[in-house]
Amino acid sequence: MKYSYISHLYCPKCDNTFDTKEQNQLCTCGSPLLVDYDLDEVKKNVTADDLTSREPTLWRYHELLPVKEQFNVVSLGEGMTPLIPFRELGSDMTVENLYMKDEGLIPTGTFKARGAAVGVSKAKEIGVKELAMPTNGNAGAAWGLYAARAGIESTIVMPNDAPKITRNEVALSGANLYLVNGLISDAGKIVGKAVKDYNLYDASTLKEPYRIEGKKTMGLEISEQLNWEMPDVILYPTGGGVGLIGIHKALKELKELGWVKGELPRLVAVQSAGCAPIVKAWEEGKRESEFWKDSETLAFGINVPKALGDFLVLDALYDTDGCAAAVDDESMVREQEKVAQMEGNFICPEGAATFAAVRRLQENGWINPNETVVALNTGTGIKYPDTVQVEPEMLEKEDTISRVEK
Amino acid sequence: MKYSYISHLYCPKCDNTFDTKEQNQLCTCGSPLLVDYDLDEVKKNVTADDLTSREPTLWRYHELLPVKEQFNVVSLGEGMTPLIPFRELGSDMTVENLYMKDEGLIPTGTFKARGAAVGVSKAKEIGVKELAMPTNGNAGAAWGLYAARAGIESTIVMPNDAPKITRNEVALSGANLYLVNGLISDAGKIVGKAVKDYNLYDASTLKEPYRIEGKKTMGLEISEQLNWEMPDVILYPTGGGVGLIGIHKALKELKELGWVKGELPRLVAVQSAGCAPIVKAWEEGKRESEFWKDSETLAFGINVPKALGDFLVLDALYDTDGCAAAVDDESMVREQEKVAQMEGNFICPEGAATFAAVRRLQENGWINPNETVVALNTGTGIKYPDTVQVEPEMLEKEDTISRVEK
Repeated sequence: MKYSYISHLYCPKCDNTFDTKEQNQLCTCGSPLLVDYDLDEVKKNVTADDLTSREPTLWRYHELLPVKEQFNVVSLGEGMTPLIPFRELGSDMTVENLYMKDEGLIPTGTFKARGAAVGVSKAKEIGVKELAMPTNGNAGAAWGLYAARAGIESTIVMPNDAPKITRNEVALSGANLYLVNGLISDAGKIVGKAVKDYNLYDASTLKEPYRIEGKKTMGLEISEQLNWEMPDVILYPTGGGVGLIGIHKALKELKELGWVKGELPRLVAVQSAGCAPIVKAWEEGKRESEFWKDSETLAFGINVPKALGDFLVLDALYDTDGCAAAVDDESMVREQEKVAQMEGNFICPEGAATFAAVRRLQENGWINPNETVVALNTGTGIKYPDTVQVEPEMLEKEDTISRVEK
Repeated sequence: MKYSYISHLYCPKCDNTFDTKEQNQLCTCGSPLLVDYDLDEVKKNVTADDLTSREPTLWRYHELLPVKEQFNVVSLGEGMTPLIPFRELGSDMTVENLYMKDEGLIPTGTFKARGAAVGVSKAKEIGVKELAMPTNGNAGAAWGLYAARAGIESTIVMPNDAPKITRNEVALSGANLYLVNGLISDAGKIVGKAVKDYNLYDASTLKEPYRIEGKKTMGLEISEQLNWEMPDVILYPTGGGVGLIGIHKALKELKELGWVKGELPRLVAVQSAGCAPIVKAWEEGKRESEFWKDSETLAFGINVPKALGDFLVLDALYDTDGCAAAVDDESMVREQEKVAQMEGNFICPEGAATFAAVRRLQENGWINPNETVVALNTGTGIKYPDTVQVEPEMLEKEDTISRVEK
């Protein structure tokens, strides 16, 4: 019985293959690499029932993850986040079986922890001593902290106006933190140069093949939490799109293993109207997206004008009869408030975008009222303190609360 | 098979008993009330092994919780937070078996969610329509959001200088939020008046008997996660002390059930040097604490000058041969940084206080190097963005990272 059934890396563009012992980055053709597993062997040795008594972390799926030796696992207890029934909000938008997968309950408070846990663990296994990456905040926080736990040095470059909380997280981790007076693309250029100059491991989105395997576990968990029945629709707030690519990959692997019943769910890439390159490409039936100029949205996690893995995101949408939907910032803020008041959860704007999309897709008939729908909340609202503006009534010490008796 | 084996409420001071169908608050003698269970019946009907396949939330212990009907459970997936081995920090302070129970991975980002989940569920079961409470922030956030999920109205009063993030959480939940130009004690007076004026359910710390049952689950989980072996020491950052009281209660119940091996762990109440009434009382061998004047600490969660349940906290310390320890703010900040850099976790100052205490208690011989020690981190560092002050190097777009090659 192996801990991992990883077999090799392959390029989804040119079909080239690579060994998993090396520190591989992009394919020679420039495409991201993906991990393949010996699923026939998994099938022979493991059943879905074997998982039941395992610990509630993403490592319960270790056979389908790339880390070969358990002692290389770098874990802070990440994964098996709750899949919460949203009955009242569901009723409000006439979607009777609405669920939220809550990625706020994970180290560093966002789903980025999944990619970091698996990515850093594998980096440790293949002998990485120092990694580098640009970040808009949350990914850097996750990679910085997991790298610290692994004893791997990290260099992280972040725009000056990335959220202060994530800056503090990175700094506290002991990473070499630099701010740049520019955008994440400027940070990316500086990292690219440093990777060459100092021979670092490039942990930028999709430039190493293992982050996606961590994100994949969201798909594995949703399936297990629905008792290995596929939902009808999964909505995902899409910036770089790694989570969507990962969920698609996970569900195909589960299908091949025969662990899960039903057709693949229709996958939905949700973007902001102020930055919607995938939506535009999908509407035009294209296989790749174009750079979105002057992007702007309060949901900074999905402010990604051109994603390296855009073709894989679009593949996932076409393959599952899914769609792409853009929602405006105002709708996000409205849904964020509704989720708090109806369901008791303070979600992030990106997560709120998925609910705004559910509402619209139900209204226009794309989602049927009796379908099982899972919306991803990719982080806790706590990390976005400025989204909410309130002015409560101020009392003096000797005041009393006066109101009309009900 | 019952969902809950709750039997009645009792007063730990005057031994009076109360029915669990009523909306009870304090005992007629002024003491908090505690919940009793029919543990003989639990013993006959449930074994620890039965828990294995249950969902990873605190509701896996439903027989030992006060909610009688499962449909009254108001849950956001709280509980079964990770118990993380801290090998490097442990080695740094020569405590070989050091663990952190991470209460950052729970709805609203602090352990207050446990009390709110169980407290609000039971409030729903006994017909509460509106609750009220004063808060320094985190408890209000948790109760406001869980009450929203339960469809219970809430009135919450908070000092003006309580953290902005928690203010936003409460406001977003739709609670009736008031700020007071004063301290939590001033908020408490305003709530007390409103409770009388409008006949509200008083959800202040220990003024209803069920919050403690939620906090208790930390003790249940620690035991299960250590395979039903008691640790030697558990350290808890102590403000109101409900968690410590709850853990003590949980461990005694497990002992009576015969689910857990070993003696009760020594319980340690950790306080800030700037607000240490329990430490003073313990040092003087007293059974109750005195009001701590002009309290001040950056760990605002443990800035409680006089706790209603102080006598129960002190009971727990004396009963388990535990102790009380005060640490200064500077040590907290130092341990917070060490935890991030060595273990990859951004913890709150209150959590950091427990590690500062472990270090000191090891140095003075109270903790032995081979003992199993569990420190509670009561919340995520994300909720305390101002604890960390950093000034990273700023680059311009065309800059490169220059450093001495290693």
